[in-house]
Amino acid sequence: MSKPVVDFWFDFASTYSYPASVRAAAQAAEAGVAIRYRPFLLGPIFKAQGWDSSPFNIYAAKGRYMWRDLERLCGALSIPFRRPDPFPQNSMLAARAAIAGDGEAWREAYCLAVFRTHFGEGRPIDTAEAIGALLHEAGAPAHSMLELAQSDPVKLRLRTETEQAAGLGIFGAPSFVTPDGELFWGNDRMEAAFAWARAHADR
Amino acid sequence: MSKPVVDFWFDFASTYSYPASVRAAAQAAEAGVAIRYRPFLLGPIFKAQGWDSSPFNIYAAKGRYMWRDLERLCGALSIPFRRPDPFPQNSMLAARAAIAGDGEAWREAYCLAVFRTHFGEGRPIDTAEAIGALLHEAGAPAHSMLELAQSDPVKLRLRTETEQAAGLGIFGAPSFVTPDGELFWGNDRMEAAFAWARAHADR
Repeated sequence: MSKPVVDFWFDFASTYSYPASVRAAAQAAEAGVAIRYRPFLLGPIFKAQGWDSSPFNIYAAKGRYMWRDLERLCGALSIPFRRPDPFPQNSMLAARAAIAGDGEAWREAYCLAVFRTHFGEGRPIDTAEAIGALLHEAGAPAHSMLELAQSDPVKLRLRTETEQAAGLGIFGAPSFVTPDGELFWGNDRMEAAFAWARAHADR
Repeated sequence: MSKPVVDFWFDFASTYSYPASVRAAAQAAEAGVAIRYRPFLLGPIFKAQGWDSSPFNIYAAKGRYMWRDLERLCGALSIPFRRPDPFPQNSMLAARAAIAGDGEAWREAYCLAVFRTHFGEGRPIDTAEAIGALLHEAGAPAHSMLELAQSDPVKLRLRTETEQAAGLGIFGAPSFVTPDGELFWGNDRMEAAFAWARAHADR
């Protein structure tokens, strides 16, 4: 029996997507599901809600809490944490490069490297130089991939992915969508999403 | 060694406070912590953020998700769920009655009854008649408690409790605060809050 596939929607500038990205592969293996990486942009979705920045910046108490909570989570996972400044940074190029790498063997390593660089080391991910270095580190042909990332088909694909996310009811990241269309929001709902996919695939 | 006390801040109109209220006693016992019920009002805190209703009403996609998520959570806990209409309802009298019952043996039963009535059966909790019946059901002297609930000292106490919640950085419910001041937000952070309190009490 093939494994049910859970879509893992994330934005490289989304704080809780970082621990989720670190946990996803092992949790999926344990749950007996496969995951499909679905990079998208939260910005247009936030804009449609009337927000011109991260809600963590707009709502100060929520922001303060989130940074402390993330620090605790990373501590519990024994992964590095360093708050990027400024936050949020433009994740468009990072997402386009991930779209360009769809189907490539290095893609997962690239995604993990982006998150670790950004939230583990607090370093920027919004320049071609930074993304090129991360592509190279992940074993990708950086120059040609950066070119592909900035091509019209890839730009269009990221736009349609983001529109699809909005159409699925996604309003934050990370989000998980099961084959039967159940939406689970947040790093802390990953296990529930995978268990749901597994339970409903067995039926 | 006495158990560390975790403050359990909740609003009777807060959706996720319902499953949290059902789970709290057993989870606390398992974790080896005590809980202190801290009813407060989210309304003034939301107002200070510029919201004149629940964020689940203001942000439609988030609201749709929350109701489905709550339904799944209640299903997993095998507790009844019925969406109150209208939502949110005024929880001030319900909170004042809980304040009035501070230290009374019936208080926990009353709090659980309010949540079960409101989110398990979808019934209103915003009238003296409803709250009186719930007090009576919990074994409280309903008439005198309703009177006390509407006295100036109790009204003032609920205001200062809500101000204290805001001062602690609380921006949503349920929230948990450990003896060393760590804030945990959400039904899904209860276990982490209790584990934190336990681990730091042992030091």
